[in-house]
Amino acid sequence: DPNLKIFSLNSNPELAQQIADHIGLKLGKCSVSQFSDGEIQINIEESIRGCDVYVIQSTSYPVNLHLMQLLIMIDALKRASAKTINVVMPYYGYARQDRKARAREPITAKLVANLLETAGATRVLSLDLHAPQVQGFFDIPVDQLVGVPILSDYFAKKNLDDLVVVSPDHGGVTRARKMADRLKTPIAIIDKRRPRPNVSEVMNIVGDVEGKTAIIIDDIIDTAGSITLAAKALKEKGAKKVYACCTHPVLSGPAIERIEASPICELVITNTIPLSPEKKIDKITQLTVAPLIGEAIISIHEKLSVSRLFN
Amino acid sequence: DPNLKIFSLNSNPELAQQIADHIGLKLGKCSVSQFSDGEIQINIEESIRGCDVYVIQSTSYPVNLHLMQLLIMIDALKRASAKTINVVMPYYGYARQDRKARAREPITAKLVANLLETAGATRVLSLDLHAPQVQGFFDIPVDQLVGVPILSDYFAKKNLDDLVVVSPDHGGVTRARKMADRLKTPIAIIDKRRPRPNVSEVMNIVGDVEGKTAIIIDDIIDTAGSITLAAKALKEKGAKKVYACCTHPVLSGPAIERIEASPICELVITNTIPLSPEKKIDKITQLTVAPLIGEAIISIHEKLSVSRLFN
Ligand SMILES: Nc1ncnc2c1ncn2[C@@H]1O[C@H](COP(=O)(O)O)[C@@H](O)[C@H]1O
Ligand SMILES: Nc1ncnc2c1ncn2[C@@H]1O[C@H](COP(=O)(O)O)[C@@H](O)[C@H]1O
Repeated sequence: DPNLKIFSLNSNPELAQQIADHIGLKLGKCSVSQFSDGEIQINIEESIRGCDVYVIQSTSYPVNLHLMQLLIMIDALKRASAKTINVVMPYYGYARQDRKARAREPITAKLVANLLETAGATRVLSLDLHAPQVQGFFDIPVDQLVGVPILSDYFAKKNLDDLVVVSPDHGGVTRARKMADRLKTPIAIIDKRRPRPNVSEVMNIVGDVEGKTAIIIDDIIDTAGSITLAAKALKEKGAKKVYACCTHPVLSGPAIERIEASPICELVITNTIPLSPEKKIDKITQLTVAPLIGEAIISIHEKLSVSRLFN
Repeated sequence: DPNLKIFSLNSNPELAQQIADHIGLKLGKCSVSQFSDGEIQINIEESIRGCDVYVIQSTSYPVNLHLMQLLIMIDALKRASAKTINVVMPYYGYARQDRKARAREPITAKLVANLLETAGATRVLSLDLHAPQVQGFFDIPVDQLVGVPILSDYFAKKNLDDLVVVSPDHGGVTRARKMADRLKTPIAIIDKRRPRPNVSEVMNIVGDVEGKTAIIIDDIIDTAGSITLAAKALKEKGAKKVYACCTHPVLSGPAIERIEASPICELVITNTIPLSPEKKIDKITQLTVAPLIGEAIISIHEKLSVSRLFN
């Protein structure tokens, strides 16, 4: 279909190419650079008048640059008469700032939603939003894909015995439950508690892990503090082996060091955020979400429901 | 007035302090930092409920970080029930992207205006917008201050003889005319022409500069290409001495090198953008716009017209 165009900005060029290959399209021509003073310069190098345009950009590090690239691209597409502007954000940055935890805090996840709509986005596609409420921050359609099937399939192929899927906190139990259903295993939950203020947290484990192979699942691994502490606690409670997995490998600050030093034998992630070379360590396996996103784009373009891709 | 609060973000802490001193207020307490993954974290550390809040932030380098800090701060202030949110942008980044010069270009100056309004700004104060049309990009009041009086006063005190004020291009003639009126001098204009495509520009000078002391005035000096070429052309046409001045010292890339190597004897700028240490060279004199902005804030707060500060 000549009216379907896919553009990649700077965050995920490899993933964007895989998505275009999956659909059987060439990526649209555009150049994204910076003027001498650091201001973003975008040139769309082919006509997109009347087209359904998909722009692929994660708002991963450096988040403010990537977000502004996306907003400026949307502005340029709008002014060049695109029919629809579909923003594909495999990773939605600022999603954790989704509520006022304290007085006078911003709700940046909502601000970002407003900025995308103001720029001219007509639809958003993302994976594993940190809170499902982020969908409601938008007044345009938002499709949310999930990483659990891809991660589960990878572990299913390993034919591991005596598995238990572990949620590293209370917020992730639903996700762990979904993975456990796919792998037909029980679940366990890391139940962190602070007995008194200024006393360090106690890692209590709800569920049976002794002698089992544990798979910890989370949506985002950032500094890897909680996941590596969880792995240690699981080992101490008698787990035989500990795997970890997540959709979004933010992996900032001490993350790689902590993972290297931890009892985690393998960390399985997806490519919603690309790994810089120094993060490509033996312990980490990266799976691609390109077929998932590619199918979703085909479904949206053929006006089919994306929700059929959920399970 | 306890209902008037001034906050500084990260771009211009010194200027913000000078503005607060001029008004006789303490800067509001807030911390602006980054999470481990580079996402901006803002904490406003005092109540601003019902207050008229002024936020001082130039969207200078790194422009995308500074702009996002500003948008997130506005969001936080709005949610904390500020009565008015007055955005003081001494330098308005992206102002040069104010029109579609070619097909499929963004109009980022307009996008930025929309983003500021969407975040919740209720008024904007800036200096020397690259094009006066940028004011019309907003649906909220925009006050535009000008640097010409400050720059002119500095040169007036030097008591230089045989002056001519020079506009480095056709777009800047109005500004040069204003300065010439203040200094009671004639003007000249650098009239760049490209005789044929792919042939370098010819620097023609309209007006008499022989034996005179020239002052070139511009709004922004970025890579300093045109201003240093203009200085050379003026010298070649017999100018005795060449000064240069501008409101916004972007000074990116080769700017400092070019200025050092040029016939410009002194470059006079303001502090709408702070100078990093390596840019503080002997040839450069920096004037403060703090009293100008301070008076504008007092006027706005007392509901007086800011336009009385124009002349
Ligand atoms: N980029 C970030 N890095 C670390 N913490 C964050 C970040 N953004 C927001 N937060 C904090 O993380 C909390 C949300 O995390 P959660 O409890 O997992 O939903 C919020 O209260 C924020 O203060
Ligand atoms: N940050 C920038 N650095 C250099 N050139 C720019 C920048 N932003 C926009 N421009 C270009 O400068 C032109 C506007 O400059 P002017 O003709 O002086 O108004 C536009 O056509 C833009 O393509």
